[in-house]
Amino acid sequence: MTRKSAVKDNVYPDEVYRNTAVKLTNQHLSNLSEDHLYHLSLVKRGDNLEKQFGDVKVVCTGGSAERMKMCAMMMNEELGNPSGPLQDLSEDGHRFSMYKVGPVLFVNHGMGIPSLAILLHEVFKLLAYAKCTGVVMLRLGTCGGIGIEPGTLVITEKAVDDRMRPVYEQVKLGLLVQTESVIDHRMIESLKNFAATEFPQLPVFTGMTMSTTEFYEGQGRMDGAFCDFGEKDRENYLNQLKKDGVMNIEMEANAFAALCNKAGIKCGVVNVVLVNRLQGDQVKISKDEYKEYQKRPARFAIKYILKSLLN
Amino acid sequence: MTRKSAVKDNVYPDEVYRNTAVKLTNQHLSNLSEDHLYHLSLVKRGDNLEKQFGDVKVVCTGGSAERMKMCAMMMNEELGNPSGPLQDLSEDGHRFSMYKVGPVLFVNHGMGIPSLAILLHEVFKLLAYAKCTGVVMLRLGTCGGIGIEPGTLVITEKAVDDRMRPVYEQVKLGLLVQTESVIDHRMIESLKNFAATEFPQLPVFTGMTMSTTEFYEGQGRMDGAFCDFGEKDRENYLNQLKKDGVMNIEMEANAFAALCNKAGIKCGVVNVVLVNRLQGDQVKISKDEYKEYQKRPARFAIKYILKSLLN
Repeated sequence: MTRKSAVKDNVYPDEVYRNTAVKLTNQHLSNLSEDHLYHLSLVKRGDNLEKQFGDVKVVCTGGSAERMKMCAMMMNEELGNPSGPLQDLSEDGHRFSMYKVGPVLFVNHGMGIPSLAILLHEVFKLLAYAKCTGVVMLRLGTCGGIGIEPGTLVITEKAVDDRMRPVYEQVKLGLLVQTESVIDHRMIESLKNFAATEFPQLPVFTGMTMSTTEFYEGQGRMDGAFCDFGEKDRENYLNQLKKDGVMNIEMEANAFAALCNKAGIKCGVVNVVLVNRLQGDQVKISKDEYKEYQKRPARFAIKYILKSLLN
Repeated sequence: MTRKSAVKDNVYPDEVYRNTAVKLTNQHLSNLSEDHLYHLSLVKRGDNLEKQFGDVKVVCTGGSAERMKMCAMMMNEELGNPSGPLQDLSEDGHRFSMYKVGPVLFVNHGMGIPSLAILLHEVFKLLAYAKCTGVVMLRLGTCGGIGIEPGTLVITEKAVDDRMRPVYEQVKLGLLVQTESVIDHRMIESLKNFAATEFPQLPVFTGMTMSTTEFYEGQGRMDGAFCDFGEKDRENYLNQLKKDGVMNIEMEANAFAALCNKAGIKCGVVNVVLVNRLQGDQVKISKDEYKEYQKRPARFAIKYILKSLLN
């Protein structure tokens, strides 16, 4: 199988989706003559957002602003500066950093679900106001691996919360509400096949991702300021996760999958492992390794976007 | 009552606390020959952190890095550049921004409890490794008011979660665990009296703060990408909060109070109102008002630190 045909076989998303506009079900939005996307520091007035963002086809997001800027720079180089010099479009909001490189947006979401959810609400509104069609969203993150070595990429097949439920649970008007975390299986296949054909040397796994609301005790770490459990408890917990099929732990995938799915937007999650949690709690790779590993989801995603999503 | 005597009457914390070192109960930390405070981009090796941070008496934190930098600049001016030009000590970590101005640290915590909790774990370890004594932590944030106008400061007396429980609930090893949210009543009195005597013109309230894990539907907003409830539900909900005594809504106070209390560190929470939620969902104040209001918790805290905590 040649590279070209492999890519062609995996054309995704399909033609129907590519022509489908992002639409939101919240009817109250149509009553707003202008809408302040407060944390993005953008305001919708008439068709201003459609003019500026109407061509967006892909949104890449991840925790740190610096990493998203790096991704944007790499894409800018690939596409030959289609939008001119990079500019942080959300700088005035002091919450997120957003860059537009031709039809691709790069925006960070901070750490944890509450911060991610704020971003997603405002990005979804942006995409809907801009009348974008066929948008794909990718979360490019970092994670701990369960028995998986640093530098490995993990494509999320199923995202669960810290109680192993495939949902994003939130509180609305004081009541617990769950939204199912779903990632389109064709998206997963597309990413997986692309990795196999385009990055055959890169260690890439596909599997279950657990998203926690806390980084230290919440992920079974014993090196936080507090630790209310012992080594045996930690070991049993992480081994049980492995038995249950959890491949990696991070802090956003379940909510990302749930909210993108609810908005009708195709999404994928690719994380790079920074520590094998069966070996320890601390991220101890060298600075050079860290820099190199951080670039892997970016390189993978940029090639994927160029070859599979933008042609 | 003169200003001076009013301040003197409220000396807080007391002498015993001022001489008490920050100590952590996590025994596993003593086994670490070095400890990577990963998200702060600091490493404890021998007594390096004690040398650099041993004099810290106050830690100010808030959501945005830019606001914390502004606070640090204001304090730097007041103290006459005791630590030289401002330098972001956590820059290499690309997650938080931290500035040290003499005995005061300024560090942002991002948005939401998961991000805050990561910061607090690492700041508590930093303070313990540095053998700091008598530390007070202040959260200086922004919030929505319940029947309270933009520009008002709210000192948190009691912090509850989005189900009105005075706790921070988290998941450890897959199990739900609650930690009580407690703010020392003398801290609240001290802040309240200081406001009354030093800022008599500034609108300041003291009351119950609700911390939610979601900004849009989680705070009863109808202007997010999704809204699964109607106007009547929203109205009933916000009116019920008012009846129950909730004065403001933000996203961190309950966890901040719970974790500081668990670490044995005195803390206070001061938020400025940016929108009266009984009037609407969107933050619509002008840019100038926004700039001015954002400075209010900073000005208040800096004067409080100088007059009450550092003398």
